[in-house]
Amino acid sequence: ARHGARKMEDYGRFLALLASSLLVGFVSVILSLVWVFHYREGLSWDGSPAEFNWHPVLIITGFVFIQGIAIIVYRLPWTWKCSKLLMKFIHAGLNTIAMILAIVSMVAVFDFHNAKNIPNMYSLHSWIGLTAVIFYSLQLFLGFAVFLLPFAPVRLRVALMPIHVYSGLTIFATVIATALMGITEKLIFALKNPTYSASPPEAILVNCLGLLLVIFGSLILWMASRPHWKRPPAENAKILRPVGATTEGTEVESTMTNSSNADKSDLRSNTEAARKQNIKFDEAGQRSTM
Amino acid sequence: ARHGARKMEDYGRFLALLASSLLVGFVSVILSLVWVFHYREGLSWDGSPAEFNWHPVLIITGFVFIQGIAIIVYRLPWTWKCSKLLMKFIHAGLNTIAMILAIVSMVAVFDFHNAKNIPNMYSLHSWIGLTAVIFYSLQLFLGFAVFLLPFAPVRLRVALMPIHVYSGLTIFATVIATALMGITEKLIFALKNPTYSASPPEAILVNCLGLLLVIFGSLILWMASRPHWKRPPAENAKILRPVGATTEGTEVESTMTNSSNADKSDLRSNTEAARKQNIKFDEAGQRSTM
Repeated sequence: ARHGARKMEDYGRFLALLASSLLVGFVSVILSLVWVFHYREGLSWDGSPAEFNWHPVLIITGFVFIQGIAIIVYRLPWTWKCSKLLMKFIHAGLNTIAMILAIVSMVAVFDFHNAKNIPNMYSLHSWIGLTAVIFYSLQLFLGFAVFLLPFAPVRLRVALMPIHVYSGLTIFATVIATALMGITEKLIFALKNPTYSASPPEAILVNCLGLLLVIFGSLILWMASRPHWKRPPAENAKILRPVGATTEGTEVESTMTNSSNADKSDLRSNTEAARKQNIKFDEAGQRSTM
Repeated sequence: ARHGARKMEDYGRFLALLASSLLVGFVSVILSLVWVFHYREGLSWDGSPAEFNWHPVLIITGFVFIQGIAIIVYRLPWTWKCSKLLMKFIHAGLNTIAMILAIVSMVAVFDFHNAKNIPNMYSLHSWIGLTAVIFYSLQLFLGFAVFLLPFAPVRLRVALMPIHVYSGLTIFATVIATALMGITEKLIFALKNPTYSASPPEAILVNCLGLLLVIFGSLILWMASRPHWKRPPAENAKILRPVGATTEGTEVESTMTNSSNADKSDLRSNTEAARKQNIKFDEAGQRSTM
């Protein structure tokens, strides 16, 4: 009963964080629209500043908000009864939408720059932003090839999963950092009379938008990095039994067990191996079985 | 033998990453000095732009480079024979140095702004930067009170350790994002003829500095988040034995075991509890015992 109560409390905490991040993400998108429609030139596709304005709106909607949701989609407890394959399609689908919106938003800037004879790709924002989009596309392509298509061997999935998780979170953080640089640039360039340093209402509003992006990122990273909020391992890959307990030998298990049975030199290194194996099982078993 | 070979290979990989991050961090500090001395007004403390220049130099040296080293200091394998207490002093000491340099670097900006009648605290860079310094100081104070002073009960250390790790890494990433915003601001304000958009050599150099900061942050985050590079648990807190194995009952163990013995309702929840317990032990045992 105590265990159950603790579990419920933990579930409530997850829902509270999820609701907070949805709210913060939603308000960020609204603020980007208020910025563009109330303080700037609105949206259009004609080489004018209103075309540029698609850039912040699509980045915040797609590359920040939708990417953030894509990151935590496996952790929603009510999806744990859905098949892993379905969840992979949702994860890949959301990331694909985010990638398309990010690319369209970049086209808007290039188009606007070219129409106004402003040089492209001179700023640190553009260097890091383009790098992030390229890595994001690579990540999506590799994730699709290794984890969604049924060809990659379990061993490869196990080896690549920690890298996939790390690079996903690092790209996400880099995207938010790039958005903050973009906000800084735009406020300096756009606010002339009064200037940014005079703190007009637009500056305050967009600074708040920047703060919300940092809070959104922090919430997503917290939810994504709690081990006890992971999707539970699939029934056919029960793992983390003490080494030596009877196993029924699914593919994942036998692959992993064979590799560690090879080095039962002494008790210490065996315990050490078991620890590492548990960690690997924990990551791979829960994530790479369909 | 195979196990040993794998261990050595892993050790070599850690050293290669460590050498890379030291190199990238060192080159970043050098580039900030080249920027300030070759392209800007050098360093002084007289309300001139040369006083402002302390800001990027001290932030990159202290708040990025030294903070990064402080984060991974427990993971240096040759320190594993040192006492945990000594390592905690080194970790806290490096972070204290970083905090002092960050505060001095902020004073330089306020001083320069006041001398030139430039408003303070109007930019997103200043909002997020000041917030980061405040959270960093809180983190250092709480870390000192809970993990270094001998008064906090083990249960509290276990509960706070994941939060300490998460907030440390999040603040570190936020500091780098803030540095990128600062670089963006300074290049726009300082480069007038030719402008930033004309990509003069100074712009290229400082953009490269920004890229290096992102690479440095990514390397530190990778090293800090690999579970198998953690400092091994202390001898008096051997952990991660399968549940039911004989334990000798150190303080940490008995606290943790008691709490999980309470819910042996059925085999499934017991296995589930063991999984969570292992994860908690893994984090707490290795980090919160002196």
